[in-house]
Amino acid sequence: MAFNPNEHQHLRYNPLKDEWILVSPHRALRPWSGQTETLATEQVPRFDPSNPLCPGVKRASGIVTPNYTTTYVFTNDFPALLEEGPEPDQTEDPLFQTRSAKGTCKVMCYHPHSDMYLHNLSTIEVVAIINEWVKQVEELGQKYLWVQIFENRGQQMGCSNPHPHCQIWSSTFLPNEAKVKDHNLKAYFEKHGRPLLLDYLEKELSKRERLVTENDDWVVVVPYWAVWPFETMVLPKRQIQRFTDLAECQRKSLASILQVLVAKYDNLFKCNFPYSMGWHGAPTGEKRNETHPHWTFHGIYLPPLLRSATVKKFMVGYELLAQGQRDLTPEKAASMLREQYDTRFK
Amino acid sequence: MAFNPNEHQHLRYNPLKDEWILVSPHRALRPWSGQTETLATEQVPRFDPSNPLCPGVKRASGIVTPNYTTTYVFTNDFPALLEEGPEPDQTEDPLFQTRSAKGTCKVMCYHPHSDMYLHNLSTIEVVAIINEWVKQVEELGQKYLWVQIFENRGQQMGCSNPHPHCQIWSSTFLPNEAKVKDHNLKAYFEKHGRPLLLDYLEKELSKRERLVTENDDWVVVVPYWAVWPFETMVLPKRQIQRFTDLAECQRKSLASILQVLVAKYDNLFKCNFPYSMGWHGAPTGEKRNETHPHWTFHGIYLPPLLRSATVKKFMVGYELLAQGQRDLTPEKAASMLREQYDTRFK
Ligand SMILES: O=P(O)(O)O[C@H]1O[C@H](CO)[C@@H](O)[C@H](O)[C@H]1O
Ligand SMILES: O=P(O)(O)O[C@H]1O[C@H](CO)[C@@H](O)[C@H](O)[C@H]1O
Repeated sequence: MAFNPNEHQHLRYNPLKDEWILVSPHRALRPWSGQTETLATEQVPRFDPSNPLCPGVKRASGIVTPNYTTTYVFTNDFPALLEEGPEPDQTEDPLFQTRSAKGTCKVMCYHPHSDMYLHNLSTIEVVAIINEWVKQVEELGQKYLWVQIFENRGQQMGCSNPHPHCQIWSSTFLPNEAKVKDHNLKAYFEKHGRPLLLDYLEKELSKRERLVTENDDWVVVVPYWAVWPFETMVLPKRQIQRFTDLAECQRKSLASILQVLVAKYDNLFKCNFPYSMGWHGAPTGEKRNETHPHWTFHGIYLPPLLRSATVKKFMVGYELLAQGQRDLTPEKAASMLREQYDTRFK
Repeated sequence: MAFNPNEHQHLRYNPLKDEWILVSPHRALRPWSGQTETLATEQVPRFDPSNPLCPGVKRASGIVTPNYTTTYVFTNDFPALLEEGPEPDQTEDPLFQTRSAKGTCKVMCYHPHSDMYLHNLSTIEVVAIINEWVKQVEELGQKYLWVQIFENRGQQMGCSNPHPHCQIWSSTFLPNEAKVKDHNLKAYFEKHGRPLLLDYLEKELSKRERLVTENDDWVVVVPYWAVWPFETMVLPKRQIQRFTDLAECQRKSLASILQVLVAKYDNLFKCNFPYSMGWHGAPTGEKRNETHPHWTFHGIYLPPLLRSATVKKFMVGYELLAQGQRDLTPEKAASMLREQYDTRFK
């Protein structure tokens, strides 16, 4: 029998993390009798006087959220990172090492209306979100080595407020994921003289089996090494190192491709598709004036659903203790997303 | 102001993974208005004629589960790893690497009764579970490089059958977590001439602030670098490389400490405390006759709950895209577990 990656188990290498994942396509036949999730389709009211992210509502800090009309950014009332605080002592013992961590956590509302998300905002309004992301990276990047923009969409992804928003956590240190990626991107660049993700994208554009959607400036793929069932990566067609390098036309085309991607996600299982998403680019802070030719700016979407709006993939025992494992192949996931309409179901 | 690790944010180093985690104790004050979990306290009937893990019931494969009286092990009907299958071609492209994966996935029932778990089994019956684990590692370790025993307890941890059971996934390859740990344990041993985990345990036994429980042979600690709120590690007091090295008295003392640990977990939030747990030891298969002085056999418990039986810690946006983050300090978690009774609430 000939090997067929859509049928036969194998390992795939993730060159960004230098690790392998187990692909077990034959396991997709497994019936599911475990936990099911609540279907996330509830209508959120446009304005809720008890929701602190709505214009004019008082927050835990006592500050009243202003009557904003576009995006609105403020410092999290319960931040995981504070700008100031006592410094830990230098520790000598290799088994009990502590280090200083400083930073700031911001919350960014996408729009004053709680019932508006990427699919029903105008492209101009999505460009406003992107412009705000760029502005935040520009400002916070003056001081902080890493500015992590991320969004947890849906209760299943730990989101605790239904008003459309993302978060921006900036730190004086390079977080693990950034450090590992920086290391692997650099090693590839030193060996091949080209940015890894640009080489990767070029090959994906010719293979075409993992493409989800593309436009003049951007491509969405299910990475060859994806671990979450419908994981995707948003890649620029031309080398860009950071959010702050985006030209105006690239912001507009990014806005439209994100609208298409979210519509496809929501159409797949006819629900508000939950995910964590975020952006990675070259480090900032003290490294903001260095060039990082190995870094290609990109977006990452990590959605937990596997079979339907209510059955997710659990990353548990084997995955936590041994290795990432997936059932559905990345090629199959890409083709399922590709098939969906570019506008969201009503 | 002096630095106080129980109050002030900092990073801690995990020498087993060579990565850092962010500890933000001040964030514990954050109110929670996000998703809550179903309280897992439902009574499972002793026997359910529709549950394939119960004695005498027919499974998906058509095989009838025998009338077992102690532990019972069989090959998973929907395994993520198969023993045979076509081999992928050797790939040259560094960005599209595939490798062969062979293995076998077993399910192991702890006891014929669905309503029996570690806390209401006799210690002799728990020893029978440990003996079966040892036997499985012995047998599967003849052929496979890595034998991963793990248990997903509770629906929240993706467990799809309430009958008490664990799984054993064996593979021809060293999974990522094993590879990274092997590498870091070896580097420490080469530098210091002693097993990392033995050095670590000695220091924990003198510091005493992260101990949960101990007996003559075993210690349970919340690791200094724990990322899950109530994560623990079960460590032997004397160097042991693998499950198969356990003397009879060490099996008995392991059985009792696991019973205590589970009782403490269940008592903490008065529920069936969900977790993924598993065992790591020196590689087997072609490496089973080598000595691995850097490897110390140990158990790992990763429970998701944070504040109560219904509020868990979400490892989402920042954690997936940047770095592990925890609110409660490991010292606080250890003291909360230490305070609990050694026998489970009724
Ligand atoms: O085999 P089970 O218990 O049905 O499945 C559970 O454990 C597996 C191993 O951690 C995971 O891959 C699955 O996502 C999870 O639901
Ligand atoms: O800040 P939020 O949205 O309340 O919290 C959510 O996102 C954070 C960052 O990924 C996580 O640490 C929390 O566990 C999660 O519930």
